[in-house]
Amino acid sequence: MGAVAHTQPTRQETCSQCCPRYHEAVELVGKRWTGAILYVLLHGGRLRFTEIANAVPDLSDRLLSERMKELEARRIVVRHVSDGSPTRVSYELTEKGRQLAPAMAELKVWADRWLD
Amino acid sequence: MGAVAHTQPTRQETCSQCCPRYHEAVELVGKRWTGAILYVLLHGGRLRFTEIANAVPDLSDRLLSERMKELEARRIVVRHVSDGSPTRVSYELTEKGRQLAPAMAELKVWADRWLD
Repeated sequence: MGAVAHTQPTRQETCSQCCPRYHEAVELVGKRWTGAILYVLLHGGRLRFTEIANAVPDLSDRLLSERMKELEARRIVVRHVSDGSPTRVSYELTEKGRQLAPAMAELKVWADRWLD
Repeated sequence: MGAVAHTQPTRQETCSQCCPRYHEAVELVGKRWTGAILYVLLHGGRLRFTEIANAVPDLSDRLLSERMKELEARRIVVRHVSDGSPTRVSYELTEKGRQLAPAMAELKVWADRWLD
């Protein structure tokens, strides 16, 4: 169970444990398409925009671009621009982003077990 | 790392691994307030509506009610109604819901490490 123990905390403890970091994390990862993008980057390593777009078929380029900017601003993703011509832009998870892997893996296990 | 391995799958594999169960799970858990409600129920066991509401201070009763109905429909939460008068309604995670604990715990670890 790691950090979550099945004890019965007081109401005050329940609240203070819940907020605000955990709440922020769960809504960050759960934001529409962000979970899928993180999954693709966790598996694919450094990827170009079109590679991410191809791996998440129903996601529009406009929304993918918006999500990548959010993830960059959060320092979960780093954007690389090559020197060559034409320049090539690629994206990679930072250490902060890669460390989401255990949580995503556990959620995948749950999804495979419990969702149709 | 569990189910998530740092191999380089083909694009087809990346897509098929990502969709649709994992995508559904991450957006289910990440839906606004759902993560916080699940966290409170994981820690608190069987709780009445007002107890959940008190543990998540910024969540309106209307939205909490909506989320509880969604979680019940997904069979993540079970609703108990007592025989007494007045009747008392309480909520508890099902086995399906409780098995989200490892994913939530890993996300909490990440949040404590990486978010301010």
